[in-house]
Amino acid sequence: MSESEFGSASIYRILKKAGAERVGDDAIIEMKNALEDIGVKIGQKAAELANHAGRRTVKGADIKLAVKTFLEK
Amino acid sequence: MSESEFGSASIYRILKKAGAERVGDDAIIEMKNALEDIGVKIGQKAAELANHAGRRTVKGADIKLAVKTFLEK
Repeated sequence: MSESEFGSASIYRILKKAGAERVGDDAIIEMKNALEDIGVKIGQKAAELANHAGRRTVKGADIKLAVKTFLEK
Repeated sequence: MSESEFGSASIYRILKKAGAERVGDDAIIEMKNALEDIGVKIGQKAAELANHAGRRTVKGADIKLAVKTFLEK
């Protein structure tokens, strides 16, 4: 059992929504790990941006800019 | 209320793990949307890769390669 933050049913629905005909169990596990990893990376950038703006609270705008920076890389 | 696939508590923990001191409610919502969006994009690539390999089932290897391609972009 994986101890991911994300539930298998949610990941399964996302993969079906993305057009997957069938989804292997290993795909669910990989996807959970990948999304959690990406989430932490975006969070790190966002925390850095909040800090840069002199705030202790990470806001939506920090996440938005962090995602943008992350995807541009 | 947002109808994301991801729970607020999970997203909060990911942001804390990433180093956020405090987390605004709007940050949680942005993060849910961003991760679901990224998940669908990775899933689309993975489904395409499975199809390319002559499979109807998306496997872990498809996700791995899709994530790699996604992050390289």
